[in-house]
Amino acid sequence: MASAEQSRIENDHLVLSSDPDHPANLICTLCAKFYTLGWVTGTGGGCSIRHNQHIFVAPSGVQKELLKPTDMFVMDANTNTYLRTPQVRWSNYDIPYAIALKPSQCTPLFLAAFNRGAGCTIHSHSQWAVLVTLIVEREFGKEACFEIEEIEQIKGVPKGRGKQGNLGYFDRLRIPIIENTAQEEDLTGALEEAMDAYPDTYAVLVRRHGIYVWGDNVHKAKTLCESLDYLFQLAVEMKKMGLPWIK
Amino acid sequence: MASAEQSRIENDHLVLSSDPDHPANLICTLCAKFYTLGWVTGTGGGCSIRHNQHIFVAPSGVQKELLKPTDMFVMDANTNTYLRTPQVRWSNYDIPYAIALKPSQCTPLFLAAFNRGAGCTIHSHSQWAVLVTLIVEREFGKEACFEIEEIEQIKGVPKGRGKQGNLGYFDRLRIPIIENTAQEEDLTGALEEAMDAYPDTYAVLVRRHGIYVWGDNVHKAKTLCESLDYLFQLAVEMKKMGLPWIK
Amino acid sequence: MASAEQSRIENDHLVLSSDPDHPANLICTLCAKFYTLGWVTGTGGGCSIRHNQHIFVAPSGVQKELLKPTDMFVMDANTNTYLRTPQVRWSNYDIPYAIALKPSQCTPLFLAAFNRGAGCTIHSHSQWAVLVTLIVEREFGKEACFEIEEIEQIKGVPKGRGKQGNLGYFDRLRIPIIENTAQEEDLTGALEEAMDAYPDTYAVLVRRHGIYVWGDNVHKAKTLCESLDYLFQLAVEMKKMGLPWIK
Amino acid sequence: MASAEQSRIENDHLVLSSDPDHPANLICTLCAKFYTLGWVTGTGGGCSIRHNQHIFVAPSGVQKELLKPTDMFVMDANTNTYLRTPQVRWSNYDIPYAIALKPSQCTPLFLAAFNRGAGCTIHSHSQWAVLVTLIVEREFGKEACFEIEEIEQIKGVPKGRGKQGNLGYFDRLRIPIIENTAQEEDLTGALEEAMDAYPDTYAVLVRRHGIYVWGDNVHKAKTLCESLDYLFQLAVEMKKMGLPWIK
Repeated sequence: MASAEQSRIENDHLVLSSDPDHPANLICTLCAKFYTLGWVTGTGGGCSIRHNQHIFVAPSGVQKELLKPTDMFVMDANTNTYLRTPQVRWSNYDIPYAIALKPSQCTPLFLAAFNRGAGCTIHSHSQWAVLVTLIVEREFGKEACFEIEEIEQIKGVPKGRGKQGNLGYFDRLRIPIIENTAQEEDLTGALEEAMDAYPDTYAVLVRRHGIYVWGDNVHKAKTLCESLDYLFQLAVEMKKMGLPWIK
Repeated sequence: MASAEQSRIENDHLVLSSDPDHPANLICTLCAKFYTLGWVTGTGGGCSIRHNQHIFVAPSGVQKELLKPTDMFVMDANTNTYLRTPQVRWSNYDIPYAIALKPSQCTPLFLAAFNRGAGCTIHSHSQWAVLVTLIVEREFGKEACFEIEEIEQIKGVPKGRGKQGNLGYFDRLRIPIIENTAQEEDLTGALEEAMDAYPDTYAVLVRRHGIYVWGDNVHKAKTLCESLDYLFQLAVEMKKMGLPWIK
Repeated sequence: MASAEQSRIENDHLVLSSDPDHPANLICTLCAKFYTLGWVTGTGGGCSIRHNQHIFVAPSGVQKELLKPTDMFVMDANTNTYLRTPQVRWSNYDIPYAIALKPSQCTPLFLAAFNRGAGCTIHSHSQWAVLVTLIVEREFGKEACFEIEEIEQIKGVPKGRGKQGNLGYFDRLRIPIIENTAQEEDLTGALEEAMDAYPDTYAVLVRRHGIYVWGDNVHKAKTLCESLDYLFQLAVEMKKMGLPWIK
Repeated sequence: MASAEQSRIENDHLVLSSDPDHPANLICTLCAKFYTLGWVTGTGGGCSIRHNQHIFVAPSGVQKELLKPTDMFVMDANTNTYLRTPQVRWSNYDIPYAIALKPSQCTPLFLAAFNRGAGCTIHSHSQWAVLVTLIVEREFGKEACFEIEEIEQIKGVPKGRGKQGNLGYFDRLRIPIIENTAQEEDLTGALEEAMDAYPDTYAVLVRRHGIYVWGDNVHKAKTLCESLDYLFQLAVEMKKMGLPWIK
């Protein structure tokens, strides 16, 4: 831990910036917004940004709407070693209580997206995502993906890696669903398989858990995550009234 | 693009004002509010204001809650040519990523309303609007409009163009519904037909998409859009419990 | 209008105060909060406070979350004449558009409560209130009131005028429902009849419209209005799942 | 009252601090957040923090989102006597109206948790918690607890007192339910029995009322309360669509 502590002290400059769009600041702003959307309640979910050769990751198990830039881990994007580990965080007055900050358990899943060129990844526990995975399993089976078509908001979803532009209104959106595992990092293999099986997808649902969404940059990842969450909520409401997802 | 760039530089004064009610500022405030209402999630939806001979339009494909006055296009209301085009927008720190701002794809639809005397138009992707279009189609067919009566909030809807005052409690509200198209601008014809077929309406629903709402000024357009969204949400909840919209 | 204008100018001191608890300031704060709760969307609903011999009333047809203290009417509580009428309100930049502010159409209904000793009245268009009136009509008929029992939040409802304390957990809450009318002021007679028929009530539901709630002071009216809204929302959710309101 | 008044004046230093994490400040911040989550509407619910030998308790019957540090009671954690009682609170301008602040009726319930080592307790009136108690009673009977399994957010729930870490994805979460009583303090016996019967639980549901949640510190209590509320809301939505809580 001495060397980690050392690297932290030397590398605070990696997370300190007055620019609100600096990744360390932006992750805090985004997570506060995601909290109000119900995506990261109870310390769940998270967000990570890659900027040039640095990957910024929020720690595990902290109140996501209260994140501070100095809470961030910074990883070398090539070697996946930590360039900065945040300090133990003392909280709640002088009660003898501290959180030894650990990197998000989502880190290997975030890396899987970064390895495919992503610039930002978002992990949401949105209840709409969870409900959609349950409905799909009951109605179409464990092998089925989520499918919906002819809803305008589908236009918020990119066509796929290396392709220009977004899906059209008449395109069918498909989001793969993988089964949850006991440990979050054990999702990595299934996530990568889903990425291979659905090479155009920028999102993978996790049954009874939530969703991983990524994009070339923050703008694209956030737009997609919001668009999908809109579609999942709409899909649940449609199902409550017996309206089909596919015409 | 040289001339567009030139016009931008010369015409920044069109969008810079310390008055919070200046259209360029007001569109930003309104879109941030609409975001919290779920109307413009995932860069969807939008808002446009006509002020004297200038039409202010937000760009396409940007985070609507983060709009800045300098993001606005300004159009000549008579010639429909651009007096100002916003600069390319760099975002997300120094990541080599920029959005070349394009006018909202809703522009021709906004113009259809301005050509009928509107001072403000709002385009919402509200899920309540989308659900209402689905329920109407299933229960009353593709030709039917949305109809509801004897709900107090109907009083938030104007009687019609050139008529004084708003609908009464015992008046039946009718909002026409048009079918969605692959390209947003291709809605223009059907929108204008619905405007002609329902000359009193200040709003047109778009199936599986959302709604276009306009008014003589910002106050009236916002009041109507909120009133309709209230009625759509109520209508969906009524339908869930088997309560009829028409007595 | 000359004398009204004169009284306004002389009586601005009635609404100008740096005290956030001054009624003219408090109505603005409360209405902004009520807007986020969905009670006063689309200029609907409102709030009025009596302070000693002055009654403060917000104007009709304005964006309730944007109220300013100078928008307030002030009425003499004894004579019910206006001591101050607000100025015409110019809005939306220099667009030639102004609202000639009129007192809330709820004013006679607010007065009915003030005449019974209230210090604050709230009028909400909450969808939960509207849905409850529809469910009661369908299930128990037009003469029935809303009844619920054995929910802890009932303890937020006062026992009745001249009685100490609030209802208990085992008390049955009853809120009368009156039929809506074309003009809001025409509700006054039915409201007063309901007040007489249910002398302990501090609230009257209006079918297909919303609710009037009052209290000895702002604290009590707000607490009651929130408690009832909680109970109405819960009642609707219970009904969706076939759970009865009365044991 | 003279001695209580005396102790208040002498002991204001117990609640005055510029540190936002001081318990007296933190209770205000938390309650404002809980208000937006719908947990403490209509003065219901509350929050208490133990810090070393001091227990900080918010008063009963006040607007929870408007709490001030000077509203706090401070109790000696060993003797359970009050070291500080807040002043009568004048509110609403100079209307002759004041609330004589009384300690929360939840105080004996909070103490039951503090006596088992808790550092923070939260009492929520969340409608999701209430609905879950009604569904469990109807489907599984009065003796049944709430049970759910294989939802990722279960990982936000600690394993139990004296045990390291949180429940796993494949662990079944069980939250006991006690019957409500006329007086809140009369819940204490049943709460303590539930604590004994479910020694691993950090939360007890109260039928038709809400939930008591506690934790070793503020961080853990808040994380648990959010995680449980998420699970209750999800459980209600699952039930609406006929999806089972247990596989």
